[in-house]
Amino acid sequence: MGNCQDSCKNFWCGPKNTNVRISLPAICFIWQIAMIALFAIFVRYDPEADAHWTEYMHQNNITSNIENDFYYRYPSFQDVHVMIFMGFGLLFTFLKRYSFGGVGFNFLISAFGLQWALLMQGWFHSLDSTDWTIKIGMKSLINADFCVAGCLIAFGACLGKVSPIQLMVMTLCGVSLFAVEEYVILNLIHAKDTGGSMVIHTFGGYYGLTISWILYRPNLHQSKRLRGSSYHSDVFAMIGTLFLWVHWPSFNSAIGNHGDGQHRAVINTYLSLAASVLTTFAVSSLSAKRGKLSMVHIQNATLAGGVAMGTAAEIMVSPYSALVVGVCSGIISTFGFVVLTPFMEKHMKIQDTCGIHNLHAMPGVLGGAVGAVTAAFASTSVYGQEGLMHAIMHGFVDRTMGMQAAHQAAGLCIAIISGIGGGAVVGCILRLPCWGDPEDENCFDDEVYWELPEDEESVPPVNQYNDQKADKQTDVNESTLSVEN
Amino acid sequence: MGNCQDSCKNFWCGPKNTNVRISLPAICFIWQIAMIALFAIFVRYDPEADAHWTEYMHQNNITSNIENDFYYRYPSFQDVHVMIFMGFGLLFTFLKRYSFGGVGFNFLISAFGLQWALLMQGWFHSLDSTDWTIKIGMKSLINADFCVAGCLIAFGACLGKVSPIQLMVMTLCGVSLFAVEEYVILNLIHAKDTGGSMVIHTFGGYYGLTISWILYRPNLHQSKRLRGSSYHSDVFAMIGTLFLWVHWPSFNSAIGNHGDGQHRAVINTYLSLAASVLTTFAVSSLSAKRGKLSMVHIQNATLAGGVAMGTAAEIMVSPYSALVVGVCSGIISTFGFVVLTPFMEKHMKIQDTCGIHNLHAMPGVLGGAVGAVTAAFASTSVYGQEGLMHAIMHGFVDRTMGMQAAHQAAGLCIAIISGIGGGAVVGCILRLPCWGDPEDENCFDDEVYWELPEDEESVPPVNQYNDQKADKQTDVNESTLSVEN
Amino acid sequence: MGNCQDSCKNFWCGPKNTNVRISLPAICFIWQIAMIALFAIFVRYDPEADAHWTEYMHQNNITSNIENDFYYRYPSFQDVHVMIFMGFGLLFTFLKRYSFGGVGFNFLISAFGLQWALLMQGWFHSLDSTDWTIKIGMKSLINADFCVAGCLIAFGACLGKVSPIQLMVMTLCGVSLFAVEEYVILNLIHAKDTGGSMVIHTFGGYYGLTISWILYRPNLHQSKRLRGSSYHSDVFAMIGTLFLWVHWPSFNSAIGNHGDGQHRAVINTYLSLAASVLTTFAVSSLSAKRGKLSMVHIQNATLAGGVAMGTAAEIMVSPYSALVVGVCSGIISTFGFVVLTPFMEKHMKIQDTCGIHNLHAMPGVLGGAVGAVTAAFASTSVYGQEGLMHAIMHGFVDRTMGMQAAHQAAGLCIAIISGIGGGAVVGCILRLPCWGDPEDENCFDDEVYWELPEDEESVPPVNQYNDQKADKQTDVNESTLSVEN
Repeated sequence: MGNCQDSCKNFWCGPKNTNVRISLPAICFIWQIAMIALFAIFVRYDPEADAHWTEYMHQNNITSNIENDFYYRYPSFQDVHVMIFMGFGLLFTFLKRYSFGGVGFNFLISAFGLQWALLMQGWFHSLDSTDWTIKIGMKSLINADFCVAGCLIAFGACLGKVSPIQLMVMTLCGVSLFAVEEYVILNLIHAKDTGGSMVIHTFGGYYGLTISWILYRPNLHQSKRLRGSSYHSDVFAMIGTLFLWVHWPSFNSAIGNHGDGQHRAVINTYLSLAASVLTTFAVSSLSAKRGKLSMVHIQNATLAGGVAMGTAAEIMVSPYSALVVGVCSGIISTFGFVVLTPFMEKHMKIQDTCGIHNLHAMPGVLGGAVGAVTAAFASTSVYGQEGLMHAIMHGFVDRTMGMQAAHQAAGLCIAIISGIGGGAVVGCILRLPCWGDPEDENCFDDEVYWELPEDEESVPPVNQYNDQKADKQTDVNESTLSVEN
Repeated sequence: MGNCQDSCKNFWCGPKNTNVRISLPAICFIWQIAMIALFAIFVRYDPEADAHWTEYMHQNNITSNIENDFYYRYPSFQDVHVMIFMGFGLLFTFLKRYSFGGVGFNFLISAFGLQWALLMQGWFHSLDSTDWTIKIGMKSLINADFCVAGCLIAFGACLGKVSPIQLMVMTLCGVSLFAVEEYVILNLIHAKDTGGSMVIHTFGGYYGLTISWILYRPNLHQSKRLRGSSYHSDVFAMIGTLFLWVHWPSFNSAIGNHGDGQHRAVINTYLSLAASVLTTFAVSSLSAKRGKLSMVHIQNATLAGGVAMGTAAEIMVSPYSALVVGVCSGIISTFGFVVLTPFMEKHMKIQDTCGIHNLHAMPGVLGGAVGAVTAAFASTSVYGQEGLMHAIMHGFVDRTMGMQAAHQAAGLCIAIISGIGGGAVVGCILRLPCWGDPEDENCFDDEVYWELPEDEESVPPVNQYNDQKADKQTDVNESTLSVEN
Repeated sequence: MGNCQDSCKNFWCGPKNTNVRISLPAICFIWQIAMIALFAIFVRYDPEADAHWTEYMHQNNITSNIENDFYYRYPSFQDVHVMIFMGFGLLFTFLKRYSFGGVGFNFLISAFGLQWALLMQGWFHSLDSTDWTIKIGMKSLINADFCVAGCLIAFGACLGKVSPIQLMVMTLCGVSLFAVEEYVILNLIHAKDTGGSMVIHTFGGYYGLTISWILYRPNLHQSKRLRGSSYHSDVFAMIGTLFLWVHWPSFNSAIGNHGDGQHRAVINTYLSLAASVLTTFAVSSLSAKRGKLSMVHIQNATLAGGVAMGTAAEIMVSPYSALVVGVCSGIISTFGFVVLTPFMEKHMKIQDTCGIHNLHAMPGVLGGAVGAVTAAFASTSVYGQEGLMHAIMHGFVDRTMGMQAAHQAAGLCIAIISGIGGGAVVGCILRLPCWGDPEDENCFDDEVYWELPEDEESVPPVNQYNDQKADKQTDVNESTLSVEN
């Protein structure tokens, strides 16, 4: 009995074991084999990617190969793909000794998540009821990348504090949840969310924040020496920011309607992003001694304009409103970094490494609100009859604009609730002490999971550093003292 | 009276105040609000980005969404966008302690400039006289990016020596000037300049050089210790170079004529760039002891082929001529770095941080000349009747080839003159001592405008460095002396 | 006579001269002038890039500019271009003191090789027999980039051990060989190889390995201190990896058939790559103490899935098979890094700096095999009659599937043989002691061919480092001793 208690206590409070030599490969292999089996059963090429395409063209009176959806979407897909793997990956390299983990684990969970996303989204959105298969094409790949983005946002809150295995569990559950809430918001409620302010950013943000809250580490200050950037790691992260910033118009237009829809989404996002850069610089300078700019703000808050324009990307908001959205999102996001993140860490026990609350959660909610408001004010005079049906109503002729706005608001609530609810459950799972997460003093340190180059000048822990200096002092003294004698 | 003199003297010669905490946010906010107001009054979506597009298609017998200009231009736009924000931004990170400023201020003034460019270019090129609005679409966004490029070139000459506020003033004036000279060259003179050798590079180059000349700092040697690269900052800059190099074919073809025009522009630029790489390596090796290559040359002169091919990008120059242009531009550009830049700094008081004279001004002039010569030799046998009208004459049936060549040459002169003239005026404005620019000994130092990571090994100023060494010496002496007693 | 012997001995065994001040510029200039002459004689624009395109459209009943091949291929071309110059270039920066050489020489030989590739491939594949000219268009540019890729792979094996002049010779011969073997495999044997598993990766891999074998340096351990990465150089290399990984679907689809062919190639490659990431992480963790991941594996083996999917990219392998291919290639590639590369270096005298055997040669062979097997199992039930002709048979109606499979296998053998044979000849040429290659103790050091930033903390050779420490020690002793007296 005591033995059992002991081992139970040991299980919960014993020293953490970060050796993932068995568990990580095991999960990767098992999961990948499961994927192969499920793909063999369920996944097929869609008609535009199938060798029967030539016959399909004849049957559907398509005269030219260029009408294949590939040519409408492939460039956008590539941009989104770059954002997921390079944009997020490099943005996560900002910590001085966690660059490998940032870019490497981002790579792992994205590649892992997109396979599961193809299945989950397929089952919910495009299961062919005649032969129970999922037909994948260009749009499926983009959607899988989107789905992964939600999980990467959540990764941002936990960066440096979790093990790769925890990240894979988080991604597995996150993708599943994502597919469900996306189905509810887009297919049941028929809210509009082209760029995913609600579905991706709001959900991903609250999902990650809740997990981070449950995994709260009271002694995280023990690894404080590593929780900062270095000059060059900041430049690496800035490359990631620029990848995201430059390609965000593609993100918000990638699955938009052909023609004017994609065109408009690009213009709106482009303008909103530009405006949020200016207000980010303004607020960053305003908030610091001598007006010095902070790289953290520039790396993150400049992107808030893209997040906030997601839901309304395709809507006829008019160019100046896109600027207004960008201005507001830049301000609240930078403000969040200056005020809210420290507050949340101190008083709410939420340790948000990358500040996803400021970059994704808040601007995502703003974006959802913008979507609801603009839907409420849509009219046939602005859109034309056909345009209105196409751009907002999804063919629901009997909906009034007010109803559509209410549905948008409902979608936003569902995104928040499922993010928090899902995060709570997953966070509790991740508290189990079997996942190989690091001790508090080893957080934000690549040493734990990576073989590091040998002769690099490593950042020594504080004590050791002082000891060294002390030793030196002593050496000199001793050598002089030895002279004395 | 004496008081007034004193304060006047203080105003001009007093110690510089680099605190931008009030001024930078103020300018950003005021400017952004002005933009919103002007966009609300003037800017609308163009028909291809408007929700009435479906009706527009019916009216204009357009059968397929893919005929929307979006699908002709969006991939090129993305490449240009990458060049502006990532290419220029990273190229400017080459200084060892000014990487934040290089990439960060590039970000700020680009986002700032493109909004103003949309308005200025709209007023000059595409103001709809029926309702006095500007209709923006894909081509407007590309042109705004182009316009910003001119100002970023000018930034290159002043890199590290000016404050963000000066940069914003420089950009504001630069964009305005750009729109005017572009209007004169393209719409009044009807010169051809697809890739902007004249309009962008020549103008931007001389604009920046003139400003740099007026802002000459005789004591710039005081910050000599920081005016160089470090091993990793050179790699960062090289990434910028590669972004520019790889995407330059898109730059020169982005606003080209659909079909053969864009196709040909890509081929010409691709070949010219390849040739300039070889001659850059050759001249760089030839100019150094033991043939060692210089990163500065490789980072910059390899791009000269793209600059020099700008004006004639769409012209039927034939592939081998594109190679010849690349060869020449690579040689003169590298030669400029080896000989001209030091000469200009020593004897002409032009401190050109990035060597824009070599990368933009000279190859730009070469490009303008190539455009004039090739226009003079154009003939219906090479182009076909229809092709000639389309590619060179803009429908001016009564122009002879010689006349077109003269117009091209006139365009080049206007670009040079407006660059120098505009730069002189703007330079004088920027000499006012109220803009928060750094002291001579603090140039090329991020410390002035950025919060830097703490525990980074910073490069200490020379004196302090010597003091430290002296202190150490003293310490040892003291400890030994204390022994003596 | 003795004099002659002496000079002969001196020629072969004397100290190496790494001064390339005459030879490098001479080769660059001569070569570039030759290129101009040959381009003037042979190279013209193809009809879609010629100003007669409008007339061509009328003649061929093409109704829309968007049917120009430019719009089918340009985005893919840009991605491939990014892979060649940025992907390979940055991947080669992983060595701590050879980043300049990695990215710089990659730049040089790519720009050099693509011009020669346009000619060689033109002569073999598309020489117009009416006027003996080569018509270049979008597809030619992509193919030239592909051709260069083969030589860059070979560069990977020799990274840090050869001079830029050797690299140019290697590229010149490599491109020539490539064009021949490509002609034999694709145009004579009519094997299918859309993404170049055989033609590019297998050939390039064995070409480079054979050269590296012939240039074996028994005393390479003398530069062991430099044969490793640093923390930031690993992140640079990781950016290169991500560029390659993200754009690989474009690589495998760039010259695919319009419509379903390109669409399918993207899906297959995307899935295969995702799967190989997971198995790479798994095997990497499994092979190390405490399960620590190795950056070398992540940087390289994650790409094996793209290589192995090359030949069969357009084939209807079905999505789950693409995953299987990715799984296998990830495993064998990582296994190669763990076991084979050290074995080959120790026992087979092959010093493979970047591990191209693991990333290109083995997965390339796997890809060729996959192509043969899948061709053998192709059937009209899967493809439809038209699709089968289009996707696999190139219109050879009388071939059985078994015959096609045999042809695929024959193609693979030819790629291997020409790689090894060509590498043997070129390797012998490169052993001549006139090429300016570095001494064994100076390998992997940018110091030899590059002007390095001055105040960088350089990695001193081991002895010197100890001397310095000893000196310091002495200094202190002396100062104390002087007190004694």
